[in-house]
Amino acid sequence: MKTLSLAELQKLVSIDAAAISAITDAYVAAADGRANVPPVGYLGLPAQNADCHIKYGYITGDPIFVVKIASGFYDNPKRGLPSSNGMVIAISAVTGAIVAILNDEGWLTNLRTGIGGAVATFALCRPDSEIFAVLGTGTQARFQIRAAAAMAKRPVQFLVWGRSVDRAREVVAEFAGSGIEVSLAPDLEEACRSADVIIATTPSTTPFVASEWITPGTHVTAVGADAPGKQELDPALIARADLLVCDLASQCLDHGEFAVAFREGLFRAEDCIELGAILNGSRPGRTSSEAITIADLTGLATQDIAIARTALERVPDLTM
Amino acid sequence: MKTLSLAELQKLVSIDAAAISAITDAYVAAADGRANVPPVGYLGLPAQNADCHIKYGYITGDPIFVVKIASGFYDNPKRGLPSSNGMVIAISAVTGAIVAILNDEGWLTNLRTGIGGAVATFALCRPDSEIFAVLGTGTQARFQIRAAAAMAKRPVQFLVWGRSVDRAREVVAEFAGSGIEVSLAPDLEEACRSADVIIATTPSTTPFVASEWITPGTHVTAVGADAPGKQELDPALIARADLLVCDLASQCLDHGEFAVAFREGLFRAEDCIELGAILNGSRPGRTSSEAITIADLTGLATQDIAIARTALERVPDLTM
Repeated sequence: MKTLSLAELQKLVSIDAAAISAITDAYVAAADGRANVPPVGYLGLPAQNADCHIKYGYITGDPIFVVKIASGFYDNPKRGLPSSNGMVIAISAVTGAIVAILNDEGWLTNLRTGIGGAVATFALCRPDSEIFAVLGTGTQARFQIRAAAAMAKRPVQFLVWGRSVDRAREVVAEFAGSGIEVSLAPDLEEACRSADVIIATTPSTTPFVASEWITPGTHVTAVGADAPGKQELDPALIARADLLVCDLASQCLDHGEFAVAFREGLFRAEDCIELGAILNGSRPGRTSSEAITIADLTGLATQDIAIARTALERVPDLTM
Repeated sequence: MKTLSLAELQKLVSIDAAAISAITDAYVAAADGRANVPPVGYLGLPAQNADCHIKYGYITGDPIFVVKIASGFYDNPKRGLPSSNGMVIAISAVTGAIVAILNDEGWLTNLRTGIGGAVATFALCRPDSEIFAVLGTGTQARFQIRAAAAMAKRPVQFLVWGRSVDRAREVVAEFAGSGIEVSLAPDLEEACRSADVIIATTPSTTPFVASEWITPGTHVTAVGADAPGKQELDPALIARADLLVCDLASQCLDHGEFAVAFREGLFRAEDCIELGAILNGSRPGRTSSEAITIADLTGLATQDIAIARTALERVPDLTM
């Protein structure tokens, strides 16, 4: 059994071609029936204002299967600790032996979520998209920018907006000199109106992206809403969109960005297409430069499998 | 994060007073509402003739919660590997940090199952019990003998029966000179007829303990049936027993020793008492020296928590 620390994992895997290819395949595997992904396990610790999610699953043909433990202890910041933590356990799909402990402290989840957002964005946005509005100033805003910049085939410009202008300035400052063009958004409405792509990354529980700000041809990737009650987009925008895409319908319609609009009857379940079905060509994606497209990503165990396998394939002398 | 190997764990914890006390409390916690134990997670890998179970939970007030991964790869013996494997992850219930990886290869499960069997046995058997018939010759037969010997307050005698006399002889030989009196059972029927206590540990899928062999006053602890289709006891014996005890009704009535008899309507759900309720005194246990009592144990996540905590409390300088 190999134990890999966060620092070791950060040397093994990044936003690179192999990881992007693995994450793309993770969506396809989920859509085409190659993945065995049981429902997410959930342990609540209400007295601690905490919870723990266990995601696990197997992609047919993989040498490993994966169990991911992700905890959220929401009072940790008061103690100067990050609220999220976790690890990934890779288990041989041949013998059941523990192959590796990936003690990533939640970093692999951030990485696969960033790459997943970029995969969805470039599968659905107009090829001539230039202005990317990034809403939110947390960890995922940074990962989404890095992943989208890595996957963009032409120069793009990121506008960062956050409720706190200071935190938005911090994001801009972090990218100074990186070769990635990141600037402060003038304001939320103006950023949305000018954007070709909007990437929403906040934990908001109140919709704050108004439908009337969104111009035809815009693509929106929403990664913030991953639990009941979270919502970033005006339900009217979801009703108005020409194409609704999700990573997993059972999750997105239950507790993702689309959940409220779905329960309000603003669209039918069959109108929500799984990203993997678009990536493998079995369903059409964007069909016009005027279409508004929205991707709602809640996170898949197949992404955890894919990113863990990508890291482990680069460990010398590791038998999988 | 501390990683503990099997060898290290075997030095830290054994069948001792602290472990017995912790396992006893594990049953009580499950019965009195102090435990938060979500349903067991299950990942099947049918092409590999394999599966993986994930047990996890929290006992209110504990410094840690626990996630246990247990895999069964049933073709492993053909490769010279054990079919079961696994590990236990202890996570801080205060910060969510990973406290320790207990890389026990399934040994802690065997230990807590052995202790759990003995706790049930001595909670329910006649105090003057002398003859303990142990059915089965596998790992759990050995653990049940060791645990029962450790908890017995007076000298007892173990009779071992197995389908393979050679394997039964191996068990007897292993205990030679141990101070624990273990001998070969003359035959199955005779062993059952003479026993004060029967401990059934086989993975049988066909009942092989006949009701007419069981004399009044006998206690039976059944630990073998832990999945649909497994069954060791004649349903007529279950129907005839004066007291049916389980570790967790939802498990035992679904896939434990009691499942078939329950589905056949041989007893009502409310006639099956949880062991923890007897251990904490809220429900009566044995009420007569003539009663036939049966305990059906399928295994609880609270046992996994209890045995992990017992080991970790003995690790020097470990902050939980």
